[in-house]
Parts: sequence; structure tokens; C-alpha cells
Amino acid sequence: MIHEFKLIRRVEFCETDMAGIMHFANFFRFMESAEHAFYRSLGFSVTLAREGGFKGLPRVHASCDFRAPLRCEDEVEIHLLVREKKTKALTYDFIFRKAGNEIARGAITVVCVDFDPVTQTMKSGPLPAIMADNIEVAPPEKFPAKK
Amino acid sequence: MIHEFKLIRRVEFCETDMAGIMHFANFFRFMESAEHAFYRSLGFSVTLAREGGFKGLPRVHASCDFRAPLRCEDEVEIHLLVREKKTKALTYDFIFRKAGNEIARGAITVVCVDFDPVTQTMKSGPLPAIMADNIEVAPPEKFPAKK
Amino acid sequence: MIHEFKLIRRVEFCETDMAGIMHFANFFRFMESAEHAFYRSLGFSVTLAREGGFKGLPRVHASCDFRAPLRCEDEVEIHLLVREKKTKALTYDFIFRKAGNEIARGAITVVCVDFDPVTQTMKSGPLPAIMADNIEVAPPEKFPAKK
Amino acid sequence: MIHEFKLIRRVEFCETDMAGIMHFANFFRFMESAEHAFYRSLGFSVTLAREGGFKGLPRVHASCDFRAPLRCEDEVEIHLLVREKKTKALTYDFIFRKAGNEIARGAITVVCVDFDPVTQTMKSGPLPAIMADNIEVAPPEKFPAKK
Repeated sequence: MIHEFKLIRRVEFCETDMAGIMHFANFFRFMESAEHAFYRSLGFSVTLAREGGFKGLPRVHASCDFRAPLRCEDEVEIHLLVREKKTKALTYDFIFRKAGNEIARGAITVVCVDFDPVTQTMKSGPLPAIMADNIEVAPPEKFPAKK
Repeated sequence: MIHEFKLIRRVEFCETDMAGIMHFANFFRFMESAEHAFYRSLGFSVTLAREGGFKGLPRVHASCDFRAPLRCEDEVEIHLLVREKKTKALTYDFIFRKAGNEIARGAITVVCVDFDPVTQTMKSGPLPAIMADNIEVAPPEKFPAKK
Repeated sequence: MIHEFKLIRRVEFCETDMAGIMHFANFFRFMESAEHAFYRSLGFSVTLAREGGFKGLPRVHASCDFRAPLRCEDEVEIHLLVREKKTKALTYDFIFRKAGNEIARGAITVVCVDFDPVTQTMKSGPLPAIMADNIEVAPPEKFPAKK
Repeated sequence: MIHEFKLIRRVEFCETDMAGIMHFANFFRFMESAEHAFYRSLGFSVTLAREGGFKGLPRVHASCDFRAPLRCEDEVEIHLLVREKKTKALTYDFIFRKAGNEIARGAITVVCVDFDPVTQTMKSGPLPAIMADNIEVAPPEKFPAKK
């Protein structure tokens, strides 16, 4: 069972805006990148997500509090922690750290859906077995105090 | 005094992802687009934001709850409502509607900073007069009930 | 028969980079937006692109020469001109103008494919009838001299 | 003297579009990422680009020919080759390979400018010494035959 994951990423020039810092919407892309890398570490790919048909993981909630900016070429650690686990949904916290200092904290809730690629419709369903069997909620002491 | 703004926008092909829907991070870009169009309607440009030096409006919080997806070429109404106004900060709610139906609801809090383009440093400061003098909090009845 | 189309677009804050100008990759997104608006003007949607199965229009070539930058909130005219038409492919030129002055010139070649959403494979095929019947090459005098 | 550089990158979910493949504009972002990593390998940062004032490297040309698509989570090698070197400009070729097979080939020409962050104006100037002294044109045999 696994309840956390860390991804290191460098801010690209194209991810900055005219204020000279990473555009805030990219924090959400970084969270998703860490989430997908977490799944890959379990042997689960969002691309090949089949288990009797395509599975998808649309987001029903996303949020982020920003304390300090990220700049071009900054290396940032994205620390994923499993906050909550339900039959059909998972909630993650994400701590962004630069040189050890917290610079942002976010959260994402995903629900599992069965996706029909022809009709492009979705219906909620249980998590794939590989996720249900291997992901657990992180213990409370893993979550740093809110700043 | 003004407390709301509506922007209509069409989802572009490049804003979709392989699940066939608009990528969730783009909802945050849409919120910011509505916010900046709101400022332009007041005669304030985020580009020419000077008032004794450059001003900036970095985000300290952003969140969104997603109820239904947006698809390529969908027309979406982004309804900005001023939730809170402080000396140095503003909080907005954003209701996304497609054909009259709410499909997502978000919020953004911005703080006003004085930005030094040479040292690339920021310091919080009061809202520009054009914003302080023209923006007010929306009355409670303007906010639709949470679904 | 139609051989040109014009789209006006305003540069968003999130489309700029730390150099204070629109990031060059966004010129390619703008070209595609003009192309898709051109198709909509014919009654053709890239989303509902079926005619005995899904059709797609992947790019096989894209290029752009940049003469001057675009800045946040700039209004830019994207002028699409049909350069070449083949049974299975179309080539477009795009002239970007700001306040009447050319600031960039690009080109895109698309091929028509039949797309299988289950196997995710593509096979080239003839243009949909609505495109074949309504799109023609622009006359030489429509193309401004290279600068 | 150095005339080539290779960067490995994995395609993110948010870089795909509803056709299930990487959106073509992202190939241009990938080329720039490889270019900036090339500069970092020389000890040159696009962020700290000062040498008697800010330096910038705006693009005057970008192009790409696409032979095969990239999909989510694909690992792609971006092979940068220095095609041409002038006092104020550099042209790079980029070969994209997936599992050893060429899937796209692009080119970018950058010019060096002195950038004034207050007036937001640019003026062309010679390459920084660290680039002029360390970058050379790749020998002809390094460039694979066009396919």
C-alpha cells in the first residue's frame, strides 16, 4: 500500500507569464503530472486505462493556495499525499516546495468513470483494482501544518 | 460601482484533452480571462498597470468545483461576481454556464502588489484607485445557491 | 466557394511569457483557431466531424516567421488564405496583423484522416464533401508580398 | 565547443488533445525546452541572462514537419543540432524520435536582443560570450537524411 509520491520538476520558460513568474494555472497541471506519475509507479497508466472498457479520472474539485512564486528554471518538489479514499473517488493534497520551503498547497478530487469513446459519455464507477488495492490514505502526521 | 461581469467564450480544440473534454486547468485560465475583461470594462488594463510604478495582481487562492464537462466549440458563459473586497485584496466567484445550466463554479483571490521589473520582487499594496473606487461586493441574492 | 477568412483575437495574460510578449507557440494555436472558425463558417465542425465515421485533420507541417511581438491585450487579426488544395490535404497561409501592420506570417498543411476512436488509429482519406465542395485556392493577388 | 544536445521528455496528459495525440503546438514548446536545457548545459540561463543588461532570445522563425503522432506518456528524444551560427543569431534543427524512429523534424531561428524590462523594448545585439565561445555548427554528417 502506498500513500505518497514525490515528483521533481523544473519550471519551463513557456510556463511563465509577463509578471516573470509561473502562471498560476500551471500549478494545476503540475499537480496532475505528479498524480499520473504516482499511478505509473503503481503500474497503472492513464493512457491504457482499460478494465472492461476505458476508464477515466475526471476532476470534480481542484484548489490551490499560493504563498510564493515559482520562477523560470526553478526546481520544485511536488509532494502528493492521499487525503481521502472512497469506492469511486480519491482526494489528494499536494505540497509544492522549492529549496525545502513550502510555496503552495493544493488539492484535487477525482472520480472514476467508465468512458465510452464513441458516444463520448461517462458514467461513474469503482476505482480500477490496481488503484483500489494499492492506494491508502496517508497517516495524519504526514500532512504538514497549514501555514 | 460594479459587482459583476459576464464573458462568453468558445472552447478551442487545443483546450481539450484526450478524454475529449476541456482540460480542467483551462477553467482557471477562463476565470482569469473574465477577470481581466472585467478590469478592461472599468478602463483598467493589467498590461499598463502603473500608478507610481508597476502594479500586479498575483493570485493567492484559486479553486473550482466541476459538475459537467465542456467540449470543443461549446459556448460557455463565465459569470464573475465580487465576493469580498479588502484594501489590498479581492475575491471573485465564477459561475460557468452552458445553455443556461451551471457546469462549474470557481473562486479566485488576488492581492495587489507593487512589482519591480528590474529586481523582479513584489510587495503588497493598496488596490489601484480605479479598482478601489469602482468595484463593490455583489449583494447576497446575486449568488446562486450551491448545488 | 470561399478562399479566405479573418478572425480577430485578443492576447490573454496567460498567453504571454516572462519576456512580456506572447509566447511563440501560441501563434500556432491562433492559426488553428482561425482555421476552425473558418470551418464553422462553412457549417463544418471539427467536433462533429463524421461522414461515415470520425474524420480528423492532423497537421503535417506548420511554420511561422515572426517580425514583431504581440503583447497582452493586443488585438490581432489572423487572415487565413487557402494556398493549396489537394484531394486529401489543404495548405493555409496566415497573416497576423496588429493595427494594420503585418507582425507574423505562418503556414499550416493538414491532411484528412479517418480516425478510429477505439483503436486510436488514423488512415488518410478524402476531404469531407462540405470542405471539398466549398473551399477553393485564393487567387495569387490575395497573398501580400513577402517582407 | 558543442554542437548538439539531447533531451528526453514524457508527453503529459494535459499536452494531448481530443484526437488522443499531443497537440501540435506543444512540439514547439518541446523544441524550446531542449534549447534551454542546451544552454543550461553550457552554464547559461535564459532567466539570469544578463551581460550588461537583460538579454533575450526571441524567435524569428519556427517550423515543424510531422510524420507520426505522439501519445500520452510516450517518451520522446528531442535531438538539437546547431544548423547555423551568426554574430546575432542561431538556427537549430530538432529531430524528434520515439523508440528510435523519427516522428517529427523542426527548426528554430533565434536572434539575440538587449531587452529593457522597464520600457519593454528590444534591440538586436551580439550573442552572449558564453554562447559565442562555446556553440559551433554541427558537421553535415550529423544531420540525418530528410525522409
